[in-house]
Amino acid sequence: MIIDCHGHYTTAPKALEDWRARQIDHLANPSLGPKAADLKISDDELRESIEANQLKKMRERGSDLTIFSPRASFMAHHIGDFNTSSTWAAICNELIHRVNRLFPQQFVGAAMLPQSPGVKPETCIPEIKRCVEEYGFVGINLNPDPSGGHWREPPLSDRWWYPIYETMVEYDIPAMVHVSTSCNACFHTTGAHYLNADTTAFMQFLTSNLFKDFPTIKFVIPHGGGAAPYHWGRFRGLAQDMRLPPLKEHLLGNLYFDTCVYHQPGIDLLLKVIPADNILFASEMIGAVRGIDPETGFPYDDTRRYIEASNLNAADKQKIFESNAKRVFSRLKVAQ
Amino acid sequence: MIIDCHGHYTTAPKALEDWRARQIDHLANPSLGPKAADLKISDDELRESIEANQLKKMRERGSDLTIFSPRASFMAHHIGDFNTSSTWAAICNELIHRVNRLFPQQFVGAAMLPQSPGVKPETCIPEIKRCVEEYGFVGINLNPDPSGGHWREPPLSDRWWYPIYETMVEYDIPAMVHVSTSCNACFHTTGAHYLNADTTAFMQFLTSNLFKDFPTIKFVIPHGGGAAPYHWGRFRGLAQDMRLPPLKEHLLGNLYFDTCVYHQPGIDLLLKVIPADNILFASEMIGAVRGIDPETGFPYDDTRRYIEASNLNAADKQKIFESNAKRVFSRLKVAQ
Repeated sequence: MIIDCHGHYTTAPKALEDWRARQIDHLANPSLGPKAADLKISDDELRESIEANQLKKMRERGSDLTIFSPRASFMAHHIGDFNTSSTWAAICNELIHRVNRLFPQQFVGAAMLPQSPGVKPETCIPEIKRCVEEYGFVGINLNPDPSGGHWREPPLSDRWWYPIYETMVEYDIPAMVHVSTSCNACFHTTGAHYLNADTTAFMQFLTSNLFKDFPTIKFVIPHGGGAAPYHWGRFRGLAQDMRLPPLKEHLLGNLYFDTCVYHQPGIDLLLKVIPADNILFASEMIGAVRGIDPETGFPYDDTRRYIEASNLNAADKQKIFESNAKRVFSRLKVAQ
Repeated sequence: MIIDCHGHYTTAPKALEDWRARQIDHLANPSLGPKAADLKISDDELRESIEANQLKKMRERGSDLTIFSPRASFMAHHIGDFNTSSTWAAICNELIHRVNRLFPQQFVGAAMLPQSPGVKPETCIPEIKRCVEEYGFVGINLNPDPSGGHWREPPLSDRWWYPIYETMVEYDIPAMVHVSTSCNACFHTTGAHYLNADTTAFMQFLTSNLFKDFPTIKFVIPHGGGAAPYHWGRFRGLAQDMRLPPLKEHLLGNLYFDTCVYHQPGIDLLLKVIPADNILFASEMIGAVRGIDPETGFPYDDTRRYIEASNLNAADKQKIFESNAKRVFSRLKVAQ
């Protein structure tokens, strides 16, 4: 089977966006704003939004199961305060849960967290518990920069984040490191901020002892690891100059890269540089790039094609398409 | 001949660092701080600092000429105010000029600018003029984030920067987009901030009409273009979704990438994805990564080896090693 570890619910019915707009309109006086119960989306609407989009493409492209989380750019943790994010995350995660119930063979949830700038990460734990215990979610998305491009939280290696890590270890769930919309005019959201965050997180892990403190923790760096594989020599050399162990030993027991790299040469580099054990298949469709590549005639984000066309052997492809995801998302229960 | 378009004076005599430390100690009352004239470095000291380091490695590795600028991480534009940066840039550029005079065949200057957070870029023009007219410098380093990792200036596409661009066009000098030390704990300077800035600048150019306003302007994005070539499909797709022209047409008349990518697979990807006309040889030695790669037995930053070992044809290699640099740095006068 083929497991896509990186999908967001980018096609949710418009009522969700409208609810959020009203929430934002009432930030100054939330009691006048919408209640969670005011959001009305029927099962039929959910079904339609998935069947005509993600599920259709999964069938066309031949992937079987998507680890599915709320739309990343809509998390927008920088808006409002903890209560704003808490209500919004709960609503978004519940929708994912409903999609999961409607399509139990094809979608399983990963949680958006109710992060808010400057608010202690332990405030996210109740939502994580709810998503794992009640909804059966198998992972979380952790935003290293809830400020949205101003980077005001401590690095991911800081003890600030440890309560979340303790919860991840307790449930054995991985975190995908995933920022949201940039509200800094310097950073285009999907063209700069996402990739920068991936590279930044990689370097935060590299310069830390986090994986000594949490030997079983697992992180997925999306978008093919940002700039990390392309500059793998630079990172190996930086680690060496700092007298750190080789990257494989220092990081690759805990770090995974997804395959959201939208052309053949990029995927070929990823597969060449990073061991197959540390790569998870992903497409992030329907996401940042939605067009057809005129050079190939196929969608940019149909990443399965690049992996199939690579010179990787069948055993390694199977790891990337399936068995690594089952290992990393260990709570995933897949019908055999 | 082989022209290395990206070298910094990382080996300047310690007196320079000491002078800067004293300048920083007196930020609150600069009149008590050191004067420019207090910096005493003899020609012999300069000669030794170059002969034992950059020149030695240039001879070993077979490069002939380095476009040489002040140490990037020491620019630290976030420290002090415009006057602080102005004095510091003048001192650093003068040292480069002296190196250039001592080794006129091997080094030519590129200017550090006296940027300061929030200060209008036109304040840098006198230093550019001085460096070009008096020192014969052939380029500048432009810092898109003088705040040092807080990204508080407008994007490079904003008219805020246009006075510098007008000066660049007037002299036909390119700018290398190069940040300095990160004072944001999230960003490791050489492992995250540098690469993020490259990707950020690339996306700022992509989403702008800058090259319509300045059809002859030239920018070099260092460190192999950050994440841009690895994610070239993503960027092609983003541009397409925005109904922009193909990247080649939209950007590659004005943008160049250097070869500071420290392993063979990364260079191979760069050479495969980016047209040879848009690649400039560079090593940034003695810079971010100084060790020997145990996988090859050669220094990580000996980038000439990777290009030589690539499957590029001889004509394209010649462009990358020599003729592109002569075209982009058009003020370069090289003995034929």
